[in-house]
Amino acid sequence: MGIYFEVIHKDIAGRVGKLKVGDKTIKTPALLPVVNPHLQIIPPSEMKKMGVEGIITNAYIFSKSEEYCDQALERGLHDVLDFDGLIMTDSGSFQMSVYGSVDITNEETISFQRDIGSDIWVPLDIPTHPDTDREEVIAQMQITMDRMREAKEIFGPDAPLSGPVQGAVFEDLRESAGRAVSEMEFAYCPVGAVVPLMESYRYRELVDVIIAAKKGLNPGACVHLFGAGHPSMFALAVALGCDVFDSAAYALYAKEGRYITPSGTLKLEEMSELPCACPVCRSHTADELRKSPDKQKLLAYHNLAVTMAEISRVRAAVQEGTLWELVDERCRAHPRLLDGYRRLLDRAAELEHLDRATKRRFFYRGSESCDRTEVKKYHEMIPRVKLAEVSLIDAGGPIPSRFAEVIGFKPPFGPVPYELAETFPVGPCEIPSWDEVMVAYGIKGLAALLATNPDTKVTISTTEKWAPQFRTAFPDCEVIV
Amino acid sequence: MGIYFEVIHKDIAGRVGKLKVGDKTIKTPALLPVVNPHLQIIPPSEMKKMGVEGIITNAYIFSKSEEYCDQALERGLHDVLDFDGLIMTDSGSFQMSVYGSVDITNEETISFQRDIGSDIWVPLDIPTHPDTDREEVIAQMQITMDRMREAKEIFGPDAPLSGPVQGAVFEDLRESAGRAVSEMEFAYCPVGAVVPLMESYRYRELVDVIIAAKKGLNPGACVHLFGAGHPSMFALAVALGCDVFDSAAYALYAKEGRYITPSGTLKLEEMSELPCACPVCRSHTADELRKSPDKQKLLAYHNLAVTMAEISRVRAAVQEGTLWELVDERCRAHPRLLDGYRRLLDRAAELEHLDRATKRRFFYRGSESCDRTEVKKYHEMIPRVKLAEVSLIDAGGPIPSRFAEVIGFKPPFGPVPYELAETFPVGPCEIPSWDEVMVAYGIKGLAALLATNPDTKVTISTTEKWAPQFRTAFPDCEVIV
Repeated sequence: MGIYFEVIHKDIAGRVGKLKVGDKTIKTPALLPVVNPHLQIIPPSEMKKMGVEGIITNAYIFSKSEEYCDQALERGLHDVLDFDGLIMTDSGSFQMSVYGSVDITNEETISFQRDIGSDIWVPLDIPTHPDTDREEVIAQMQITMDRMREAKEIFGPDAPLSGPVQGAVFEDLRESAGRAVSEMEFAYCPVGAVVPLMESYRYRELVDVIIAAKKGLNPGACVHLFGAGHPSMFALAVALGCDVFDSAAYALYAKEGRYITPSGTLKLEEMSELPCACPVCRSHTADELRKSPDKQKLLAYHNLAVTMAEISRVRAAVQEGTLWELVDERCRAHPRLLDGYRRLLDRAAELEHLDRATKRRFFYRGSESCDRTEVKKYHEMIPRVKLAEVSLIDAGGPIPSRFAEVIGFKPPFGPVPYELAETFPVGPCEIPSWDEVMVAYGIKGLAALLATNPDTKVTISTTEKWAPQFRTAFPDCEVIV
Repeated sequence: MGIYFEVIHKDIAGRVGKLKVGDKTIKTPALLPVVNPHLQIIPPSEMKKMGVEGIITNAYIFSKSEEYCDQALERGLHDVLDFDGLIMTDSGSFQMSVYGSVDITNEETISFQRDIGSDIWVPLDIPTHPDTDREEVIAQMQITMDRMREAKEIFGPDAPLSGPVQGAVFEDLRESAGRAVSEMEFAYCPVGAVVPLMESYRYRELVDVIIAAKKGLNPGACVHLFGAGHPSMFALAVALGCDVFDSAAYALYAKEGRYITPSGTLKLEEMSELPCACPVCRSHTADELRKSPDKQKLLAYHNLAVTMAEISRVRAAVQEGTLWELVDERCRAHPRLLDGYRRLLDRAAELEHLDRATKRRFFYRGSESCDRTEVKKYHEMIPRVKLAEVSLIDAGGPIPSRFAEVIGFKPPFGPVPYELAETFPVGPCEIPSWDEVMVAYGIKGLAALLATNPDTKVTISTTEKWAPQFRTAFPDCEVIV
């Protein structure tokens, strides 16, 4: 049956797409809630009513369960879990990462996943911890590769197998793992063993790891960020090119009395208010929720509702081309996420070729917005403009009538020739009152234009406030106020 | 009966409090949804289940309604609207601002509001448009003042009368209006006629207007920002010291097919996703909602749910001392709101004395965080620290053993003497990797400390990256790397 992935919209390196496996199709980015058959705090049939199109469960738990193993083999996973959407199964890899080993082989787990009717299967890869020594990482990657090759050989090229990308924090290894997986023609590729990075807020490294894996992977591959389920980082991960997430957080956090928000997690014990529009939060006070006999289930419901809402928001942002703004909004919620976001901005040039050409708008959200892909693209394009012999740059000052050519100036982009004034990004760009960083970037754009028009006599008209910055940048130009 | 306002928690100039009128008490900040008796798209009894503690309705509409006037006089407003919470009534002022005049007197509207059992009454003030000439503003303010004086005289000092503060965009007039209202002992003070500023995104001026009104008002007054009901600006308005909002937006926007989010408004027609956790959004796709026969009611429900959720979030932020972070999050949503936020930061010194001493944390969210009240306060306090004769400032470099005194360095605060290392704000402060603006503010703090310790021999230990910035700022200090 195979796995097919179709990209419909793009923004930065993010995509909105359709993932098709057999007769199941789900929208991406997607969140697959983790369902433990023994602890169905929210039954999958209820999840479906909240917009969940796919779930993930653990084949290893099924295979070891007296209660569920035979049921799953006889009736199939979809019937046992009462869910007719997409069901992905994990192998015993997670248990291996926790307990060190599992008593099942690669072939056994994949056969079992097939036999219980799972839609997407995972081979028994080795989830290499990010802090593992390089030599050990290489050795473990070799085992993972061998098992993926074995899986393809035994189950054939059309089996709905996923191909995990390991490599710890070594960018070259993640990249070569990605390349190997794509060469083996896996269309669905989880980036594995990143949970320890997320748990310790190492978002800067996470950004590098994902960029590296994506560099190796076929751009058409559907990328699953294994174990990522907190809504605060969906926007960032999607901007890097991840398409699927899975999460047990909604349930695990509920068990610990933790309340998920798109900007972080709160302890219910310490909360004075329930700041959310979900039915649980609008019909309970914090105190009522704390004392409810259904506390855990209600909290899990809230946690899943906000998580699904954020997935919707990310999809909407990609579709309308406002993903940079959502990444900015979410990543300022924690200083370490801000670090990850700034790392993404540092490396934006590497993603620029993936970004789309026009978007709904450009809203300036602070100095970080100056490093957006659209500004870089504009600065690369602007030198192609040909100026007349004498030009006035209108940066907010007086416009003497002697100039035949007047070029606008809009920071952080810079010069805005008449032909570009209505087009993206400068046209639908909204900026606040100018700030120094923004003007410095605008000056960069102007410098690029002047460099390719050395024979033009340029006058810059601006206000007292900004004249010194222009005079310093362009000592050979006349600056009038 | 009178109006009583009690402040329980503070953050920046914002408060969490209790507003008591007769036997009714509501938590503030509060949103009073506007209820039009003729068009009860969400009945007040349903609002109550969503956490609404108070509503506002228009006494003028009641007085002119064949259907409702007698009913309200006979059965009382609470019975007619089936709502036992707080009900505030507006006079005919809103109609006056739209139609130019109304056929009711000040005394008539107040008597009517009393007779229908309203909890908070509004005199017939003149809502002066922000773009009115100064002379005309003064003349209209005079009429408003006369009517408030008249109201106090006729209805007595304990009548639950509100005292609106007008003055258009003239800061001195808003301030003197505030002072006059407080001198007349109004405890509940709406800041009036700001809707045109909000409608045209003039948030910078709105900030100035509110600061001016608050300067004149008694700090114990409960401040209502008349007509403010979009959740994107609640955090900003609360930071400035507003306590109550009212909104018809949830219903008016629903009528126009507009979908409210805490970061702006979307057109349902253009939406691909419903990015929200409310029951409407989790149980419908965008397309299903567009086609629903109950579209308007469902959309109003969503709009009100997110609005109430944001009010909860603002209260929680004030309570835990994270309001600066929420203001930052919300105001970056639109460049003009960012302008308003930056204006608030420019004027933060004026609010510093109102801010509380310790908070839960300080999360750095971008260069704007350097202008927070806590940084200013720290820079004013740090010069009081007495240094030893020889000091090492540890800004990330090597620590030679020859220094008896080692002072930490944490931008944007600056030097962190041992005694302060665990206390707010430097203790619970989380910052990303250093950036230039942050380090410049830290250097400001260090300069203030060194200025009051001129005899100390200071060595600064830092990394190659930051050494030039320290060398330029402190040419007389040794800088080691």
